This record gives sequence, structure tokens and C-alpha cells, in this order.
Amino acid sequence: MSIKKFFFQGEHGAFSEEAGLKYFGFESRGIPCKEFEEVVKNVIKEKSSFGIIPIENSTIGSIHSNYDLLLKYNVFIIGEINLIVKQHLISLRGTQLKNIKKIISHPAALQQCQKFLRRLKNVEIKLSYDTAGSVRLIKEKNLYDTAAISSEISAKVYGMKILKKNIQDTQANITRFIIISSKKKKPEKNPKTSIVFTLQNFPGALFRALSVFALRDIDLTKIESRPIPEKPFEYYFYLDFRGSIDDVKCKNALLNLREISNFLKILGSYEEDLNHR
Amino acid sequence: MSIKKFFFQGEHGAFSEEAGLKYFGFESRGIPCKEFEEVVKNVIKEKSSFGIIPIENSTIGSIHSNYDLLLKYNVFIIGEINLIVKQHLISLRGTQLKNIKKIISHPAALQQCQKFLRRLKNVEIKLSYDTAGSVRLIKEKNLYDTAAISSEISAKVYGMKILKKNIQDTQANITRFIIISSKKKKPEKNPKTSIVFTLQNFPGALFRALSVFALRDIDLTKIESRPIPEKPFEYYFYLDFRGSIDDVKCKNALLNLREISNFLKILGSYEEDLNHR
Repeated sequence: MSIKKFFFQGEHGAFSEEAGLKYFGFESRGIPCKEFEEVVKNVIKEKSSFGIIPIENSTIGSIHSNYDLLLKYNVFIIGEINLIVKQHLISLRGTQLKNIKKIISHPAALQQCQKFLRRLKNVEIKLSYDTAGSVRLIKEKNLYDTAAISSEISAKVYGMKILKKNIQDTQANITRFIIISSKKKKPEKNPKTSIVFTLQNFPGALFRALSVFALRDIDLTKIESRPIPEKPFEYYFYLDFRGSIDDVKCKNALLNLREISNFLKILGSYEEDLNHR
Repeated sequence: MSIKKFFFQGEHGAFSEEAGLKYFGFESRGIPCKEFEEVVKNVIKEKSSFGIIPIENSTIGSIHSNYDLLLKYNVFIIGEINLIVKQHLISLRGTQLKNIKKIISHPAALQQCQKFLRRLKNVEIKLSYDTAGSVRLIKEKNLYDTAAISSEISAKVYGMKILKKNIQDTQANITRFIIISSKKKKPEKNPKTSIVFTLQNFPGALFRALSVFALRDIDLTKIESRPIPEKPFEYYFYLDFRGSIDDVKCKNALLNLREISNFLKILGSYEEDLNHR
């Protein structure tokens, strides 16, 4: 069997890579990309490869920009993994907390650690484009007065010290990552399907849409209406349900939904991750 | 009539203050607070005052942490206003783009302008806790090599120059703000109601919940399931519908919903803002 290859956004040691290694096993290989869109494009270019992107987080909610990529490109969700995101303050081995004059990280990580950062006095906080990349920079430039906010795995990758553990504001900060591929894959167990659709705007339209699932005893695990900015009073609906598009009753439900929706895209059927839910 | 007073998070010139001034009129007075929680606490303490907080954004979605405040404290939504968020690069009047060595702003603003920031070479990007506060800092310290990312109103408040307009990644970036008060207020027209509830977890539970609205022809404007991190497989449902809790049919729908929900909180009835939807 060949080694599994997956693309992720960020540098080595990023949370996406951590999630990918957990999903594919530690013998798999993560390939860093600058942008999420680059991840998706690479997955389309290299047929046997995979991609991993975050799709929602327990504090900040659904990541609409990554849903947009799933609508724009022809890729399928073939798996998911929930990861508890823990942020740590990371430095060179010789550095002590009192010597820190600068902290660098990605804006999302900085935002997740605001309470911790606000308590610090006389520390300058600087932006970088990557959590793991910040750790690498400190290592390469030998910055004894600087710390990065990043994952445990990034400290390991670059042989750095964790100066302070779990500095994120919320202790249960869970990110749901999805695995994407240019080819569909049949889930082996606990199947779950993700779809996006739009409806005609009349009272009860959503109720009618949900009836196609309820009347077939299909369990929903997510529903969200997202206003479409360019189209006033229209919504995308994000919906996840238990079951595979290969099951007859799910297939029928979707046929039924197509009749009443203006637009429907099946993002994929895959095995549900039952951890950290 | 006395001058309307509203609390907002941030410093003078913040988007929340801009939204508040648009809602209450330019003769009203915004009072800055450090944290969103402080806004809510002040509204409870000063009975005749109001608060304004963002609740969702067209790119980043619902702001769960502010929903959490509405669940934790006894305040009511009495209004809403949709604001197009435009970020600008702001500097002292004498500064030119080529002289900029540093850019400062709040992490959320920096995240909204990532494409613009990535194109810049040799510019250091620093974090502050406030968009408008960054503008004030540049003014006070007379920093000719520094620019802030902030709102048009903050440039006006501090008499600064807009060096580059509309630098946000997405052109249609709309934030929905809600007005909160310690007292309920009856909406005069276009009534809309926001609620949060939880359901027993069985297939079709949500369908049954939505039936209480559909069977009474009540139009939904938002629905979102949010996993409750501490309670696996349980969800909060955020739901907005057209109508007031004083309407008989809405009152009956909510009575009906109480029968099948584990928890239900009515956040308030208020006039819908039909702009930028």
C-alpha cells in the first residue's frame, strides 16, 4: 500500500496536519499549502491525494469560506475528524516566561487566547500567517525574547519548549475537519451525508424540506441557514444527516428534496466521527 | 426627551458605535466598554440605557459567544440593525502608503483583510484590542510610519486620513447588530422574534418543532443548530421568525414548542431591519 498523502493549509505542525495525521495514521504525509483554495485545487490535480480543511468550530461556528470552496469545486467529503484544539505558548528551550517581549501567531489563534493575552503587560503581540510557522521562525532566528501560540505537535516538530499549556479562552474548543477527495468513497460504518441547498422563499418551505427526512426517520445532525449576501432574503441551508446516499431511503429523500429545492449539492457521504461530540 | 445612551464594545469610532448611532440617531451617545459582557452588565445596571452587540456576520456566521451572553443574562433584544462593514487603511494626514512600516488592528479586522495584508512587503503587522483604538494610538503618539485598519467613522472621530478604502477581502461583508435592554419593548412594525431552545434527541424532533410554526404560516428567517460542547449530541437551536410574541398565533406556537422542548428562552420581539438582507 502506498503512503497516504494529504494537503493542508498552514506549515508543518498546524492543527490541520495534526488532524490529518490522526485520521490517516502517523505514517501518512501532510503537504503544506498557503491557502485553503490551494488545498482543494491540489486534490483535484492529484487524483490519488486527499485534502483536510476545518469546516466548523465549537466557539466560532461554521466556516462559511470553506463551505464556499465545496460549492465552487468538484470535490467530495469522504471523512471527518473532530479535534480538541489546545493552544500553547511555545518558545526556545532556554527561554523563561518573564523574558518574553513578543508573542507571534495567526489571528485566529490570537483571538482564541484573548483573555490570556490581555493579562500580559509589556508584551508586544504580532501577527503571522501561521501558528506552526511562528514556531519555526523563533527556532530559525533563535529568538530568545519571543514566544509563539501554536499546537503541541508544532513544538515537537521543531524541538521547542511548551512554556505554558492550554492558554485558549474556552477549554472545550473543538474543530471539525473534513477530508476531501476528487473521488467519492463509500462509508463502511456510521454513514453521514452533507448537503447544501436553497429553497423558494415561502412560509413553511423549510418545514416541507425537512419533512422528506422526518417522514423517513432520517436523523439530522446539523442544520444552518446562511443568508446569501448577494441575494436578499435567500438562504443556503447546510444540512447533515445520518445515512449514506447509497441507502434507498436517503436516495428517495434526496430525490424528493430536489423537487422542492432551487439548488442542491451533495457534498459527500462518509463515516461520522463520534468522538468529542 | 432625554438623550439615548448605549453601551458598546470597543473605543469611540468602533463599528458597534457606528451601528448604534445609525439606530438611535446622531444625537445619541455611545459609551465604550472593554468587553461584551461589560456591555450586558451595564444595561442591567442602568435601567434606562441600551446596549449594542454584533450577533452574526455574513462571512464568519453567528457569534456564539454573544448568544451565550443572551442565555446567561436577563436582557431582551429590542431592535436590530444590519451594517455593511467596510475596512479602511487609516493614517496621519502626512503619511503616504510607501512610508508605512507597521499596521495595527483588532484580530477580527486583520482576518477580514488577509488578502490585502499578504500582498504587502516589509510591513510588520501588530495586534491591538480595538480597531478604533488603533487609530487613536497613531494620532496620540504621532506615528508617521504606522497605519490602522478601521472604520470610516473612526477616521472622522480622530481627524485622520483614509489611505486606502475598502481593503476587506469580501465586498459584501454585512454584520447584524442587536439592541439590548433590561426591559421588553413592543415592536411597532415588521415584528420579528428570536428564540433559543433545546430538544430531546430523536429523529424528527426538529421537524416536530418546526411544525408549530409551519402549521400557523409563521415565516422563519434564521435557523441554526449549535452543538453544545459539554453535552455530546445535544444542540442549541437558534431560531428567528416573523411575528411578535404578542400575536396570538405566535404565542400559541411558542406554547406548543414549550411542550416538546427541554429548554426555551425568548430573546425578544423587535422590528426587523429590512436593509442589506
